[in-house]
Amino acid sequence: MLVVMDAHASQEHIDAVCTVIAEMGFHANPMPGPTRTAIGITGNEGAIAEASRIKLLPGVRDVIRVTAPYKLVSREYRELNTVLDINGVLIGGQDIVVMAGPCSVESREQLFTTADAVRAAGATVLRGGAFKPRTSPYSFQGMGEEGLQLLAEARERTGMPVITEVMDTETVDLVAEYADILQLGARNMQNYALLKKVGRSRRPVMLKRGLSSTVKDWLLSAEYIMAEGNPAVILCERGIRTFDNHSRFTFDLSAVPILRELTHLPIIVDPSHATGRWQSVLPMARAGIASGADGLMIEVHPNPAFAVSDGEQSLLPERFADLMAQIERVAAAVDRPVAGRSTLAL
Amino acid sequence: MLVVMDAHASQEHIDAVCTVIAEMGFHANPMPGPTRTAIGITGNEGAIAEASRIKLLPGVRDVIRVTAPYKLVSREYRELNTVLDINGVLIGGQDIVVMAGPCSVESREQLFTTADAVRAAGATVLRGGAFKPRTSPYSFQGMGEEGLQLLAEARERTGMPVITEVMDTETVDLVAEYADILQLGARNMQNYALLKKVGRSRRPVMLKRGLSSTVKDWLLSAEYIMAEGNPAVILCERGIRTFDNHSRFTFDLSAVPILRELTHLPIIVDPSHATGRWQSVLPMARAGIASGADGLMIEVHPNPAFAVSDGEQSLLPERFADLMAQIERVAAAVDRPVAGRSTLAL
Amino acid sequence: MLVVMDAHASQEHIDAVCTVIAEMGFHANPMPGPTRTAIGITGNEGAIAEASRIKLLPGVRDVIRVTAPYKLVSREYRELNTVLDINGVLIGGQDIVVMAGPCSVESREQLFTTADAVRAAGATVLRGGAFKPRTSPYSFQGMGEEGLQLLAEARERTGMPVITEVMDTETVDLVAEYADILQLGARNMQNYALLKKVGRSRRPVMLKRGLSSTVKDWLLSAEYIMAEGNPAVILCERGIRTFDNHSRFTFDLSAVPILRELTHLPIIVDPSHATGRWQSVLPMARAGIASGADGLMIEVHPNPAFAVSDGEQSLLPERFADLMAQIERVAAAVDRPVAGRSTLAL
Amino acid sequence: MLVVMDAHASQEHIDAVCTVIAEMGFHANPMPGPTRTAIGITGNEGAIAEASRIKLLPGVRDVIRVTAPYKLVSREYRELNTVLDINGVLIGGQDIVVMAGPCSVESREQLFTTADAVRAAGATVLRGGAFKPRTSPYSFQGMGEEGLQLLAEARERTGMPVITEVMDTETVDLVAEYADILQLGARNMQNYALLKKVGRSRRPVMLKRGLSSTVKDWLLSAEYIMAEGNPAVILCERGIRTFDNHSRFTFDLSAVPILRELTHLPIIVDPSHATGRWQSVLPMARAGIASGADGLMIEVHPNPAFAVSDGEQSLLPERFADLMAQIERVAAAVDRPVAGRSTLAL
Repeated sequence: MLVVMDAHASQEHIDAVCTVIAEMGFHANPMPGPTRTAIGITGNEGAIAEASRIKLLPGVRDVIRVTAPYKLVSREYRELNTVLDINGVLIGGQDIVVMAGPCSVESREQLFTTADAVRAAGATVLRGGAFKPRTSPYSFQGMGEEGLQLLAEARERTGMPVITEVMDTETVDLVAEYADILQLGARNMQNYALLKKVGRSRRPVMLKRGLSSTVKDWLLSAEYIMAEGNPAVILCERGIRTFDNHSRFTFDLSAVPILRELTHLPIIVDPSHATGRWQSVLPMARAGIASGADGLMIEVHPNPAFAVSDGEQSLLPERFADLMAQIERVAAAVDRPVAGRSTLAL
Repeated sequence: MLVVMDAHASQEHIDAVCTVIAEMGFHANPMPGPTRTAIGITGNEGAIAEASRIKLLPGVRDVIRVTAPYKLVSREYRELNTVLDINGVLIGGQDIVVMAGPCSVESREQLFTTADAVRAAGATVLRGGAFKPRTSPYSFQGMGEEGLQLLAEARERTGMPVITEVMDTETVDLVAEYADILQLGARNMQNYALLKKVGRSRRPVMLKRGLSSTVKDWLLSAEYIMAEGNPAVILCERGIRTFDNHSRFTFDLSAVPILRELTHLPIIVDPSHATGRWQSVLPMARAGIASGADGLMIEVHPNPAFAVSDGEQSLLPERFADLMAQIERVAAAVDRPVAGRSTLAL
Repeated sequence: MLVVMDAHASQEHIDAVCTVIAEMGFHANPMPGPTRTAIGITGNEGAIAEASRIKLLPGVRDVIRVTAPYKLVSREYRELNTVLDINGVLIGGQDIVVMAGPCSVESREQLFTTADAVRAAGATVLRGGAFKPRTSPYSFQGMGEEGLQLLAEARERTGMPVITEVMDTETVDLVAEYADILQLGARNMQNYALLKKVGRSRRPVMLKRGLSSTVKDWLLSAEYIMAEGNPAVILCERGIRTFDNHSRFTFDLSAVPILRELTHLPIIVDPSHATGRWQSVLPMARAGIASGADGLMIEVHPNPAFAVSDGEQSLLPERFADLMAQIERVAAAVDRPVAGRSTLAL
Repeated sequence: MLVVMDAHASQEHIDAVCTVIAEMGFHANPMPGPTRTAIGITGNEGAIAEASRIKLLPGVRDVIRVTAPYKLVSREYRELNTVLDINGVLIGGQDIVVMAGPCSVESREQLFTTADAVRAAGATVLRGGAFKPRTSPYSFQGMGEEGLQLLAEARERTGMPVITEVMDTETVDLVAEYADILQLGARNMQNYALLKKVGRSRRPVMLKRGLSSTVKDWLLSAEYIMAEGNPAVILCERGIRTFDNHSRFTFDLSAVPILRELTHLPIIVDPSHATGRWQSVLPMARAGIASGADGLMIEVHPNPAFAVSDGEQSLLPERFADLMAQIERVAAAVDRPVAGRSTLAL
């Protein structure tokens, strides 16, 4: 931590700061400059919690934190990439993983049709929402446990592991009974009770980035899960909220190379939710792979115009098949195979 | 709802849109223009849920929603301001209400000292956190039920009703046992399970605005609470996340006059969390009152440098007393008394 | 400046950084910590220009700048507030100054009617645009020099000094011939050629904040003007661009107390442009004064529905008179008179 | 345009709106609904300038614009992509174009070394700044005309056309004498005097997106140039300003597919300025090509640590050569050759 003093701070002020630092058990390193003095703090392990004790002292202008506040998620804690094995599907390894399926589970027929189609095109994880977070209380809220049962049947049918969203602490156990991966949505990224609860689950967790969350906030939320004992966390970029309104959100692909440096966790990107329009899904899926992501989450629906949610961003099965063919080519250009496509090639 | 057709849409496209609108049970009003046709939809009650069914038709460029998606919270639903009576404290009426207290309840002594001081200066609601949402899992997480008990004791001691945060569905009943007002934090503004649960509580709820929530999102979250049967909702602006980094968040006071037009619910503003620095709390508290808010939430601590959370934005009791004196003058300038100050004057 | 090393940086890396710092003529202060070493740099005067020379060395994680990059505009450079005397109107002093008038000068009658009305209500500076920056090339671009002549006539008529926008280097001399204060618009805040040109003018300059400018960027743009020899700079907050769309921009009043700490320059706020709707102008004007601003810029038009620009945010003269009466009361509550109102009271 | 009436608007209000619409020469189409009436306006050509005349009528809640305010830049005006021929380099065609070179021209040796290196790796346009817009007045401001002369020499030497920034109206003619493409920087995107001036130049113009500019604002600025008679406009995405601070700006690649739909103009992306860190340039360059851009702008410097500007985002020549090899593969995956690489392959 670095303490920056006011230009007019007196020697008494500087001494008082050094005394407080010593009282806290750390070492103060004053560095006088021509206009102001800075004081480096050493001897601490991890981030200093009591920064405000120093910041509020007279003559202190600013306190600059240097140590990252997260540990378990950091690349410094674990140098090698985390690779998760979900029923034989490896996430975070060399292969690109595509998670696909409908926004909401609506019926057995809708789910099975979609699952068969995405499987045939090379998806290796099936997505589908049973509990749906909706901005309006009057919108469809999901099929609930019946939806979970249909997802489990679809897994039996296709062999694909299943990812589905869990919205609250009370249904974590229920969802974990059916799902292979628990998804935490953007609006719950800082729902700390939920983070702790899934941290105590044995299921892997995919944590979507909050709409206005910095990379640091996001990694701290992942740290909540890992600190409870669950090492199987996947990060998913799905667009942030900015002044820009041409798409539903702003797809922040530049976060991918940054995450790669800061953390060992697998990185998925979701162009469907980020852009909110099906016409943008294909180019942005290609861009996501080219940026270095480990996989994609894509919404597919046999009849988007009649989807109960997010129809405007859902791909028809044939467009999804085209997307898979195209991203396979982009993935090859960055020396990565697409998991389910190599099997198809046999 | 208004459907905007592409410039090159054919008459067949236009007819097909009108047919779908008719199938949905509404009336289509085509309006041909020189470059494109627009089609107005009438005959609907409330917002049309199946907009994407139309948006995905060939030749459709855009679909513009006209009807607000919320009802119970709207000024059109209820013309008169909602005024809540919390143990005799009126919120949303003519009097300005000031809620004050420490960020976290830390000890009996800290809480009582603060409660006595804010009471003496004219605050009429006591705030204090017992369950604390923190970005880092390694930060202090609150005293829990012990903190709630101390808050209840402080209520006995001072006569002030108590507001405290509830973080998850599992503790709603517990918190409601002790608190007079349930606070929902910014990061939980779209925690729909929690919104529904407090909607079924008999306690009034103060709903803080999410960091990246539009006014529409915010009102829809309030609608969740009201739709479950709880009419006692207070809105609290506490800063939004923008590129701007001079303060912790950007205090969006311009939302106050907009909210006043759109909704009948009481409006509180929180300059402590919005700015994150005690030096800005006084001027922005004055600005909040001048903008038309019904009250303030202010953090006060007897020894901010040693506060376990948010010390940098907490006021010393004597600075809070000065703030109360100053906002009383500003309130008078907009013809509003400050609730607790009129009693003091006796 | 503080250099933060990677956790795995070797002693050779650290030594190499210290060597480069020494070569640059500064002093290196290494501070070893448990996970990483930080190196403080001292001996520099002002901000270090060659930061990237250090940042790109092996083993360096980050470089943190401590010294503010501006000088002349800073409170540290000049402790007392700058007070400008514009033909007897003091800006930045104890009195609140209100600049008012139409968005665009449209005709002699429109300008004179408005000027008389705002003068009668207590405005002391007349605003009016002769050269108009418009997002569309097909919108009205202003009356040009004819508009400037009308402004000069209105000054004769009312005694009020005139502020008007200058849009490019080529018209600075022309505008300076007629205007008492040159206004630089938000979209030109980083038009460096223009900043330098007005910096060489003898006219005071009001610099509006850019739509996405940080306070630091803004002060650096003011520094451009002062560095060319013009000490008479006024800052004007007029809304920033954020995700928030309830108003035209987000009015960042929290910048006012921050600016007050960082700079000695006068601070004006413009609720008309910030909110873009006349209904919000009055409450946000009150809030601006309560936040500590030195004055307001307000758009007034005798017939807003027929204004050639910004009619939606313009006040009718009678509403402006009401605004003046109300802000006089708020100003009194923060112990400041409104300049033109004290004269009226005589 | 659609006029949305208040829920409580009377029939008189509705009639009055229809009368005004008729006075303006248009046709009013009232559509009564259960809670409110909407009124469609037809008979207009292009956007209606006098919207505020309607918006300010009693009983009007909102006015929704339907017609895009730009014309010449729109895909509807010209269906086929614009392809520019700059001394034999085609921009906007099938081939990917890479513009590369140093941020600033610093010396003959620095420029020639860089130009030779980027040419050898397959760049086909040389970039280099002679006039530099800098946030601080104390930073290096560019070599001026001497830099332009060096660029012209480098063109002779390498055969590559040259792009360089023009900062103000006064130097447009000078820069146009030397440069093949005029670059307008982000901070000048709404410098309307400059837009008009380059619109009257015979040189092609590359218009960088403003830091907080919407796609609509950006296209309107391009419209300014085209409206003056210059059809040769290139758009360049270079990052927008958001809350996100992991990189210098947020690289908005999702704008690429949107632009492709709305306009016929060529689209370049600049990962160097968008991310501000060399480590992110390669992955985001790949992502840019995968998203569908027509080309890249990349900063290269033989010794980034000693660059006078933007060293932290500049690539070493050998890293640039690697980037070219990698983007050639990604371009091939989307069926596009990289212009200068096909020549190399001979």
